[in-house]
Amino acid sequence: MINRQWLLASHPQGQATLDTWRLAEAPVPQPGPGQILVRTQWLSLDPYMRGRISPSTNYTKGVGIGEVMQGGGVGEVVASNHDDWKPGDIAEAMGFGWQEYAVLSPDLPGAARVNKVNTALAPPQAMLSWLGMPGLTAYIGLFEIGRPKPGDTLVVSAASGAVGQLVGQIARLCGARVIGIAGSDDKLAWCREIGFDATLNYKTETDLRGAIAALAPGGVDVFFDNTGGPIHDAVLNNLAVGARVVICGRIALANDFDGEDIGLRASSRLIVTRSLVQGFIAFDWWHRRPEAMARLAAWHRDGKLITREDILDGFERMPEAFLRMMSGGNMGKQLVRLGG
Amino acid sequence: MINRQWLLASHPQGQATLDTWRLAEAPVPQPGPGQILVRTQWLSLDPYMRGRISPSTNYTKGVGIGEVMQGGGVGEVVASNHDDWKPGDIAEAMGFGWQEYAVLSPDLPGAARVNKVNTALAPPQAMLSWLGMPGLTAYIGLFEIGRPKPGDTLVVSAASGAVGQLVGQIARLCGARVIGIAGSDDKLAWCREIGFDATLNYKTETDLRGAIAALAPGGVDVFFDNTGGPIHDAVLNNLAVGARVVICGRIALANDFDGEDIGLRASSRLIVTRSLVQGFIAFDWWHRRPEAMARLAAWHRDGKLITREDILDGFERMPEAFLRMMSGGNMGKQLVRLGG
Repeated sequence: MINRQWLLASHPQGQATLDTWRLAEAPVPQPGPGQILVRTQWLSLDPYMRGRISPSTNYTKGVGIGEVMQGGGVGEVVASNHDDWKPGDIAEAMGFGWQEYAVLSPDLPGAARVNKVNTALAPPQAMLSWLGMPGLTAYIGLFEIGRPKPGDTLVVSAASGAVGQLVGQIARLCGARVIGIAGSDDKLAWCREIGFDATLNYKTETDLRGAIAALAPGGVDVFFDNTGGPIHDAVLNNLAVGARVVICGRIALANDFDGEDIGLRASSRLIVTRSLVQGFIAFDWWHRRPEAMARLAAWHRDGKLITREDILDGFERMPEAFLRMMSGGNMGKQLVRLGG
Repeated sequence: MINRQWLLASHPQGQATLDTWRLAEAPVPQPGPGQILVRTQWLSLDPYMRGRISPSTNYTKGVGIGEVMQGGGVGEVVASNHDDWKPGDIAEAMGFGWQEYAVLSPDLPGAARVNKVNTALAPPQAMLSWLGMPGLTAYIGLFEIGRPKPGDTLVVSAASGAVGQLVGQIARLCGARVIGIAGSDDKLAWCREIGFDATLNYKTETDLRGAIAALAPGGVDVFFDNTGGPIHDAVLNNLAVGARVVICGRIALANDFDGEDIGLRASSRLIVTRSLVQGFIAFDWWHRRPEAMARLAAWHRDGKLITREDILDGFERMPEAFLRMMSGGNMGKQLVRLGG
């Protein structure tokens, strides 16, 4: 049996292209002691992957040339050498990689852990979006750094994305007023549909800083920043006293990932407003995933968390899906569904 | 009797000049009920004053054209309408202003409070430097934001200044390794004399970022930033995982105070290192001043806190002293001593 795999072909200079990866074939591997073999059903596309294909040092080891591209997925167990797992179980893990079959080690700890998917709770691919890493990202960023409270004004960028859509809705549950920033009117219309109080299109707004000031005359108390870049500057020029800025992502820099990021030095605004800016990585908080999942599932069950996925069909479309996500072409969480 | 005063003559565009203020004469005022009249003995020069002469909004009301320049001082009570104060007492307050005589209201709360100076504890002008606002600034910035611990590497900019000299020594008491950055070899030699582990001259160092990396191969755990600007960028490119960046001042921008501050957007480094950047203003923490003073006084008494002042003699030298401090011409806390 053949296991198709996407291997890293080159470290991209600037934006990745369809040629950044190449499709290869390998034999389907056999699980060793304590391992399981899974057939991939869903693969996740996430901005952190851009860091993994950069030659520069990032927070974890990147993908080498000729290695299987890293990424999380969901799949069905087809063979098991582990007492707790049997064929037909559904597994979710960060360690699938871009391949049709993967061998996983359920006893690995932390972020490498393999989770058994409770399909009664939600569709399995939810484990890659609102019940998974993006859900944990929104939950931790908001509650550990942003700390929204009733009456606060919160701004979130990439507002309709996998993380942004959750941030806005959870912040509203906290009693905050939510302003979403995204790059198309369709995305913004959907954000308003799921309860955002106001929205801004950064591509058509000629004075984003002024537009934020008009929507947040008392200043921005919480900024959940998924993009970095000029949107970051426009919001930082509108901070309220005691603001919290959650530095979650920098997808605006996708085209110049390894270059110097030049823009606003916010020192002056941070002093005058006594504000806090903090970066974080969801993988550090994997021990909090059960807590986050329980809350997210309850909100979802009660209709308080409406989510949206952007699904491409076919394993061969992985690079296309990656480029789609990095350029903001997706509406909601970007996923690829593999054929039966 | 005549009260000489320095009045604001104009809002400076960029750097202040000797003509930013003009010397005027007024009658010595009389204290009203509950007030005291003091004869100024010492006046303090501090970077926050640059914000007070800016026409743009800052964190508090600025000085209007024709108004007495704001500033803290120490002086002797010459008349009192307050039961707790008698002629000969020494008063310290933020509300002296640049004038030879001032009327103060001892019952004002918070940062506007008038403190009776215990001259047995330290020379009275210490209340304007290590026992006063700069001391509180170092204490709060370090313990509320920087939180140095044994084994940490701390970098402080404007290292020999009123705040920097304290930050470095207190951080060493915490068990941290301290790297000081300043703009002259004399300043750096003195920093090493009072115990700093290493120093860097930002004016002669051609690769500040690389020089910091060489001195802090494990990264910078705490950065106490008094300058902003390119020094800020060089340190932020060297943060360790979990770093804390204390945004205290931005004196590097003295020449372009109201312009846009363009430089490194640190989002990427903050995510990768999971670091925190926080601005603060000592005036928010006035309620902690007794605690800070007690600790600072004990360290000073035990010889663990060595401090240095830069004294100019004569009230007429106030603008000169201000320019000297803003351009880094001072060695240690900048003060002006008034005659008899």
